[in-house]
Amino acid sequence: MKIEDIIDYFKTTQATITQAIEAFEPKTSFKGELQKNERGQTKPQILTDGTIIEKAAVNFTHSIGQKLPPAATVRKPELAGSPFQAVAISLIVHPQNPYVPTTHANLRFFQIGDDTSSGNWWFGGGFDLTPYYPFLEDIIHWHQMSKNACEPFGEDLYPQFKEACDEYFYIPHRKETRGVGGLFFEDLNTGNSEQDFGLVKSIGDHFLKAYLPILEKRYKMPFGEREREHQLLRRGRYAEFNLIYDRGTKYGLQSGRRIESVLASMPPVVKWGYQYQPEKESPEAEIFQYLHPKDWLS
Amino acid sequence: MKIEDIIDYFKTTQATITQAIEAFEPKTSFKGELQKNERGQTKPQILTDGTIIEKAAVNFTHSIGQKLPPAATVRKPELAGSPFQAVAISLIVHPQNPYVPTTHANLRFFQIGDDTSSGNWWFGGGFDLTPYYPFLEDIIHWHQMSKNACEPFGEDLYPQFKEACDEYFYIPHRKETRGVGGLFFEDLNTGNSEQDFGLVKSIGDHFLKAYLPILEKRYKMPFGEREREHQLLRRGRYAEFNLIYDRGTKYGLQSGRRIESVLASMPPVVKWGYQYQPEKESPEAEIFQYLHPKDWLS
Repeated sequence: MKIEDIIDYFKTTQATITQAIEAFEPKTSFKGELQKNERGQTKPQILTDGTIIEKAAVNFTHSIGQKLPPAATVRKPELAGSPFQAVAISLIVHPQNPYVPTTHANLRFFQIGDDTSSGNWWFGGGFDLTPYYPFLEDIIHWHQMSKNACEPFGEDLYPQFKEACDEYFYIPHRKETRGVGGLFFEDLNTGNSEQDFGLVKSIGDHFLKAYLPILEKRYKMPFGEREREHQLLRRGRYAEFNLIYDRGTKYGLQSGRRIESVLASMPPVVKWGYQYQPEKESPEAEIFQYLHPKDWLS
Repeated sequence: MKIEDIIDYFKTTQATITQAIEAFEPKTSFKGELQKNERGQTKPQILTDGTIIEKAAVNFTHSIGQKLPPAATVRKPELAGSPFQAVAISLIVHPQNPYVPTTHANLRFFQIGDDTSSGNWWFGGGFDLTPYYPFLEDIIHWHQMSKNACEPFGEDLYPQFKEACDEYFYIPHRKETRGVGGLFFEDLNTGNSEQDFGLVKSIGDHFLKAYLPILEKRYKMPFGEREREHQLLRRGRYAEFNLIYDRGTKYGLQSGRRIESVLASMPPVVKWGYQYQPEKESPEAEIFQYLHPKDWLS
């Protein structure tokens, strides 16, 4: 496994996903220029104010560092000061229609030294879904695709990554999860780099299989002010999670990374109400029952 | 000084401020019921969707605790386990018109034991202003009132509280302050409780003198989509500060306090754009020059 292959795969995936989303947009397209320097390259792809997609960001970055900061190697202090490389693709889709869920995904690779021969490399990433309305069939499909992505690489992976996802996206002060989860993994290195890269590719390839059918099925559903209001208030919780708990955002803000990239995942419009309580047994109230870890495939 | 006098003053101030704000509203009024139990009393006053005021909250709380948690007394560990009382009034006003600044204020009193005789009591609080458009005369008036509030109690207080306010409301990842500041003080106990309470009352009484003339002057100014858009994007920074840095919010979320109260200060509607850059030399761009500590009265 070479880092060039990972860079290639992440870039191809970025192109595939942006094209697939753009296909829904009659007039709008993704914008963003590749920027390169000696510290790496970055290619943001942002679509705003679309007819179907209110905001989407699919960003690719490749960072080359000369000296790993000590804070980054708490578990392996002997690696501090080593050269390192990081490659990542991260994605967010905030659709206009409240019946279409918001989705988020990312894939990351990190390596100490100039190649993978030292064994000091790790993959991380996953994808998750945040519906505003309860369509059980969509959630089952989403989790079926999550499972399909992992299954060829081990039966225990989907339950493990699903549980990690439920844990990561929990909002303690709301006592609910951000959405219905999906996959989440960190520090993946089984020692077999080809197999691990294979799993990461399978997860990357399953993202569109998981999301597109849901987008396709829901984006034309008629909605009004009531649904929009509900969506904006639910997005408030999304904003709370990102700003208060998300480790990537926290790290980005503290490390002084480009703020527009760090906050690219924020919803475009958000509301905070006071004591917002959807009517009992309304679909707006029913979504709360979905925001607790469940075994969707049994 | 008795805690009953502080409770009286805070409650009277709550009534005075809500009446003054309500006077601007042709149809809407503050809502919220007094709730009492053996652990104290709380009276939220919330106004939503007004013609002039989009959202305002003026909340009073009096908490009675039997045992101070160790985490609350890092500086005086010998006080852990003591009975304590806390009284607070906290306020937020988010006006509809982007030319009217958002304002926030709070006054707090904390005492160990059943009365102030032990000397273990402290005041805290202050008020600050977040304009979306640059009206220098408004900011000078705001700071003049801040200064007037403190001056009878010592010449050094205004500069000290103003500096603390600028520091507290700094947003590191944006490299700007949340607004143009005002007053901020903590752990106030000079040993002279009557004098300290006098200062707190003076600050409480100066809030309306500082804010009303600005509200009065600006609320009828015509505005359009451009101004509203700018206001919503600037409110995003307000939300970022509250969720990421505000100590009161952080403590409230961690301690499991009633979430609606903890987040009562959140703006009702917020936008996050991508690379929002107001046109050069526009009033929207000019406000950025105001978001760095300045000596407004010299």
